[in-house]
Amino acid sequence: MKRYEKFADDIAELIRTGVLAAGQRVPSVRYASQTHGISPSTVFQAYYLLERRGLIRARPRSGYFVNDSVRLQGLGDPAPEQDARPAPQVSESTEVDVSDLVFSVLESIKDPNIVSFGSAFPSAGLFPLQRLARSLASATRDMDPSMVVSDLSPGNPALRRQIALRYMVSGQMLPMDELLITNGALEALNLCLQAVTEPGDLVAIEAPAFYACLQVLERLKLKAVEIPVHPQQGIDLAVLEQALERYPIKACWSMTSFQNPTGATVPELRKRELVELLRRHEVPLIEDDVYAELYYGQHAPKPAKAFDTEGLVLHCGSFAKSLAPGYRVGWVAAGRYAQKVERLKIMTSLCASMPAQAAIADYLQHGGYDRHLRKLRHSLEDQQRAMLGAIARHFPAQTRVSQPTGGYFLWVELPEQIDSLKVFQAALAQGISIAPGPMFSPTRRFKHFIRLNYGSPWGETSERAMETLGKIIRSMMG
Amino acid sequence: MKRYEKFADDIAELIRTGVLAAGQRVPSVRYASQTHGISPSTVFQAYYLLERRGLIRARPRSGYFVNDSVRLQGLGDPAPEQDARPAPQVSESTEVDVSDLVFSVLESIKDPNIVSFGSAFPSAGLFPLQRLARSLASATRDMDPSMVVSDLSPGNPALRRQIALRYMVSGQMLPMDELLITNGALEALNLCLQAVTEPGDLVAIEAPAFYACLQVLERLKLKAVEIPVHPQQGIDLAVLEQALERYPIKACWSMTSFQNPTGATVPELRKRELVELLRRHEVPLIEDDVYAELYYGQHAPKPAKAFDTEGLVLHCGSFAKSLAPGYRVGWVAAGRYAQKVERLKIMTSLCASMPAQAAIADYLQHGGYDRHLRKLRHSLEDQQRAMLGAIARHFPAQTRVSQPTGGYFLWVELPEQIDSLKVFQAALAQGISIAPGPMFSPTRRFKHFIRLNYGSPWGETSERAMETLGKIIRSMMG
Repeated sequence: MKRYEKFADDIAELIRTGVLAAGQRVPSVRYASQTHGISPSTVFQAYYLLERRGLIRARPRSGYFVNDSVRLQGLGDPAPEQDARPAPQVSESTEVDVSDLVFSVLESIKDPNIVSFGSAFPSAGLFPLQRLARSLASATRDMDPSMVVSDLSPGNPALRRQIALRYMVSGQMLPMDELLITNGALEALNLCLQAVTEPGDLVAIEAPAFYACLQVLERLKLKAVEIPVHPQQGIDLAVLEQALERYPIKACWSMTSFQNPTGATVPELRKRELVELLRRHEVPLIEDDVYAELYYGQHAPKPAKAFDTEGLVLHCGSFAKSLAPGYRVGWVAAGRYAQKVERLKIMTSLCASMPAQAAIADYLQHGGYDRHLRKLRHSLEDQQRAMLGAIARHFPAQTRVSQPTGGYFLWVELPEQIDSLKVFQAALAQGISIAPGPMFSPTRRFKHFIRLNYGSPWGETSERAMETLGKIIRSMMG
Repeated sequence: MKRYEKFADDIAELIRTGVLAAGQRVPSVRYASQTHGISPSTVFQAYYLLERRGLIRARPRSGYFVNDSVRLQGLGDPAPEQDARPAPQVSESTEVDVSDLVFSVLESIKDPNIVSFGSAFPSAGLFPLQRLARSLASATRDMDPSMVVSDLSPGNPALRRQIALRYMVSGQMLPMDELLITNGALEALNLCLQAVTEPGDLVAIEAPAFYACLQVLERLKLKAVEIPVHPQQGIDLAVLEQALERYPIKACWSMTSFQNPTGATVPELRKRELVELLRRHEVPLIEDDVYAELYYGQHAPKPAKAFDTEGLVLHCGSFAKSLAPGYRVGWVAAGRYAQKVERLKIMTSLCASMPAQAAIADYLQHGGYDRHLRKLRHSLEDQQRAMLGAIARHFPAQTRVSQPTGGYFLWVELPEQIDSLKVFQAALAQGISIAPGPMFSPTRRFKHFIRLNYGSPWGETSERAMETLGKIIRSMMG
């Protein structure tokens, strides 16, 4: 065991036994270095490790503090062998290449006989597909052929008005001009990132990150600087700040609400800080907000976009997760980059599919979207409860799991010795897919984590699949 | 006048007066150099100029021959000041940047009050939009939610079967696995080009080229090597061969049938030669074949893909020009690159819009596609006749124009002193859009050319707009 690991364990013990209480400041680097006779960099590495374990967290210009609820919901660190290498405050910039792994996982979920806990989608059965089909029929039945031209990018005017209206209701005035309809949010994110970078540039991303983000970086030949995500606080602003000071970062990509895979939501105050921090460095924020509508509380969490006064936030949304999977209708409000992103869109795929745009515009006006959303949120919350219960019943006691306040993913930390890739293989052999942790990191970290999707109605099949999963995991604990 | 221009004029005079007859070989470079006391490179430049004027053409390993029907349909050369610079056999590799011009032209066609001769689209009124809407309704009404997953890339299975069937009927056996559905052909072309190149690579393109091709190169930071297009023969194989020998070209992009903007179709024998030439150099061909169904003759011209035995041809098609504009459903059969292209598709935009895919699959089975196509081809041919007549009536006598055997574009060579950008501005002021020649070249050549779209039903408005255009052009002849 390295010296910094030993020191980290000592601090962890102080936290576990309550000597260091939640919210309390841990010893400063200088103080700890002097009193323990170790170098400041060893202390730093130890704190970084504890931070990634979710035990402590940095506050800008104030030092490290014990996390609030680490014992209930804390998330651990990457696999031990990853820690053996020197742990920089900011993880190394890395060329991104996780595709092979991701594609093999994606392939597995296409089989309808597989229990798809590994899926990125909620079950299509939760969506009003029949009602949407009626909107599709009525919006295209008496269609004016000139719609073919009027629906060209930036997109169907009625749909863009409806989206602007939803921003307005949530308190944001957005000029219609800023809104561009895309082939799902994924295309929007691709276009945004391309608009603000050149091949070879550095991009600050989350660790863990949604694998599609890693794929976009790979496709655009960009390099990742990984910023840790905390289960309660989302992206770590202190580490991000250091990264911005140390590296010529050209963009930051963050899922600020119900992050995929951790489920973390950046609190509103910190979203404001995030926007302000990036503004000081003149770095654009690409805000992936596709789960925005899937909150379980009384109100939608505000996006970082709400605090943007400089047009530096490119806010990407979608109907794929909340209304119309498969329609591939997303959008971006790209701030000062709106024209550039629109041109890239035209050069890439001209415009989004017209019938899908027209159908969603019609549905938003007449279909009862808010009623559907209320029902959907209740279903997801119920399903989360069911899956958390199944984890408690079937998984080893050392398992730790987040409890997100929206979305449909659980990020599950298994005992350290478990290799989630082996769990993936063994589960697949028994007809169950899961998303193994290394999918979510360009450096293949999070080896003993898995992401589970609870976006399908719960039933006997789900319960039995969880039981099987639990058995597989236990059998690997030796 | 430069020496090579003088010599070119001498040869042109011999052709005009019939001393050199159609099909006859022009003097070899060596012979002409010796007998006229000029350097071989001067002869070469002169022949290159004549070739671009459509008067002669190269045959691989045989020298230059007088073109068959130069007086009727010959197309000229770029503007004189372009010729003042040394004319290399292969035009310089150039960074591509034509976007501003293209976007301003595109913007102009969105206004429904503009007569849109500048449009890239045929009139939506020519398409069975009502019938498609019925297919849309019936295909989605009783939709199985699992379709959301089954329609993921590579795409709707029924649609892919229908497309494979159409290939089969035209004599090509294509494995279903090779077919990927995309958001229109434009996305397919983007993905193909990205699959076979890295930023900074050279790509052989046509001169003139469809401007979207130039935009894709710009977006992917590729460089263009321009290969001339002949009105009867399409892309010049002799020049392409020299380019392949001289430059490290990584891909060739060609519209082999009814090329946009010239309307040229590469004859079948030469398509075979093209495939063979590229095979020898191991260079993939990205075949943009979006007008394939719009032929006026008895049979569809075979694509280059039909002669590909090595999987080196990436064949891109679309329903946008023949059936369903605005639906954004295209495809690619990417040969040995199929898996790579599919992965890029998933990373870029996941999959194509599900309702549009399902609707077209239904229409192809039940809608009467072939009947619709026959009607569409007749309309386009009639409209071509009407526009050619209007050119004869209203444009200056020196005007030269191609007579394509399919598609819906005329490539019009105006008198040399005309600046098509000025024509564009003046016409727009009178409510008429055209596509000026420089849109089609990364080096802004084709200054006195315009592309006219005859994809709208002909009527009094069209006739009057052509009359106005003629007046504008005459007024610029000073």
